[in-house]
Amino acid sequence: MPAQWSSPVRYVECDQQGVVFNAHYLTWADEASNGWWASAGLSWAELTERRIDPLVKASTLEWSAPARWGDTVTVDAETERVGRTSVTARFTVRVGEQVCCVVRTTYVCSSDGRPTPWPDDVRARLTS
Amino acid sequence: MPAQWSSPVRYVECDQQGVVFNAHYLTWADEASNGWWASAGLSWAELTERRIDPLVKASTLEWSAPARWGDTVTVDAETERVGRTSVTARFTVRVGEQVCCVVRTTYVCSSDGRPTPWPDDVRARLTS
Amino acid sequence: MPAQWSSPVRYVECDQQGVVFNAHYLTWADEASNGWWASAGLSWAELTERRIDPLVKASTLEWSAPARWGDTVTVDAETERVGRTSVTARFTVRVGEQVCCVVRTTYVCSSDGRPTPWPDDVRARLTS
Amino acid sequence: MPAQWSSPVRYVECDQQGVVFNAHYLTWADEASNGWWASAGLSWAELTERRIDPLVKASTLEWSAPARWGDTVTVDAETERVGRTSVTARFTVRVGEQVCCVVRTTYVCSSDGRPTPWPDDVRARLTS
Repeated sequence: MPAQWSSPVRYVECDQQGVVFNAHYLTWADEASNGWWASAGLSWAELTERRIDPLVKASTLEWSAPARWGDTVTVDAETERVGRTSVTARFTVRVGEQVCCVVRTTYVCSSDGRPTPWPDDVRARLTS
Repeated sequence: MPAQWSSPVRYVECDQQGVVFNAHYLTWADEASNGWWASAGLSWAELTERRIDPLVKASTLEWSAPARWGDTVTVDAETERVGRTSVTARFTVRVGEQVCCVVRTTYVCSSDGRPTPWPDDVRARLTS
Repeated sequence: MPAQWSSPVRYVECDQQGVVFNAHYLTWADEASNGWWASAGLSWAELTERRIDPLVKASTLEWSAPARWGDTVTVDAETERVGRTSVTARFTVRVGEQVCCVVRTTYVCSSDGRPTPWPDDVRARLTS
Repeated sequence: MPAQWSSPVRYVECDQQGVVFNAHYLTWADEASNGWWASAGLSWAELTERRIDPLVKASTLEWSAPARWGDTVTVDAETERVGRTSVTARFTVRVGEQVCCVVRTTYVCSSDGRPTPWPDDVRARLTS
């Protein structure tokens, strides 16, 4: 079951074409990422204590429909791919059943500023 | 002579009524405040080293005309009033000669989290 | 009973001092204003149809405590003063019982771009 | 020669890790896109008059270094690929010579809400 995040669209997020400005989808995906890490049993407290620092390496966004003021957006967050040193999450932004944007973000595991393989137990939790 | 900050209005800053959303005027005043502190000869490095932490206590905004995409806004920043533990700066946001908004922000001097009088030399620089 | 708006603080809203950047309080008050107008029985649809356009004339903000990532902010919105052509709403932003900021925003009634007195029925609804 | 856009990093753009929050790179690329369309001789006025509406279809972002408060970012905007109904622009965000992020955005040509091939003269200008 995916982690979910949801919010009414804010007036400040809509541009003068009356649709949500594209950068805000990345903000929403970032908000949804907190619940996604938590759904894998990974809290920031634990990651920080173990000096595991996931860095955002890349994001892709594909839009299929606009969100507007008055809409409530829901973001479903799911693990898409786990690599040796990276993980990609998929964030599906939708208004009801209408998908507006799919965001994919790849995080790389770093420790003291260097890329490093995920510890086995972290990788296991991301995969399950 | 006032400190100045200037920027083209960004598309993301305009709402679906085609005018700059009100909260962004506070962001612009904040950007202009850096030059204003510097114009008083007060750098963040010095303030930090001396453990002087100016806290934003209050802001007021009065709008008189909208700014729009395509406009370049200029903010003139000037000292309005210096108190024993506070200082108020006035930020005039304009497009050419047309004033759009006047922002006044009051900072209180704090040290280790407590309000404290400005050191004499700091007060002198704010006043001059 | 005041109109309420609530939201978890977003990561993007916190600055490098680890507290919510001041301009976002104005954004939250704006979001809360929708429920406040609605609580007076005034929908944008009705206002638009009757060509009543409330313009934001002034805002004041007074901070008393910071909000942080992890907090959920609640905004209580209440009518503070109704004038012949204006109305002032008070937005109290709090985290639990701790008040972080009080925002007051004054709207002036305009029609076709000119200030105009509130229609009697609108004024009555704002006052009640 | 690429179109360029440049701005000092704003305080509001930095998060509590002291680096620019990822969504703002998309905002900067959007700002840079205006100069890029203009550099192809395509003004919004002309596009609007001819009912050519370029829609943002997809964006990708790859980060290689953080930008921070105090930095000035420059965005170089260049055409990467022109298709029958789409065009991809590449936005290289850098601080001095240090590349922070490469953003690629694909626009599709639409008219009255439907994808449509670029008119020949528009395609020629995008390609040259």
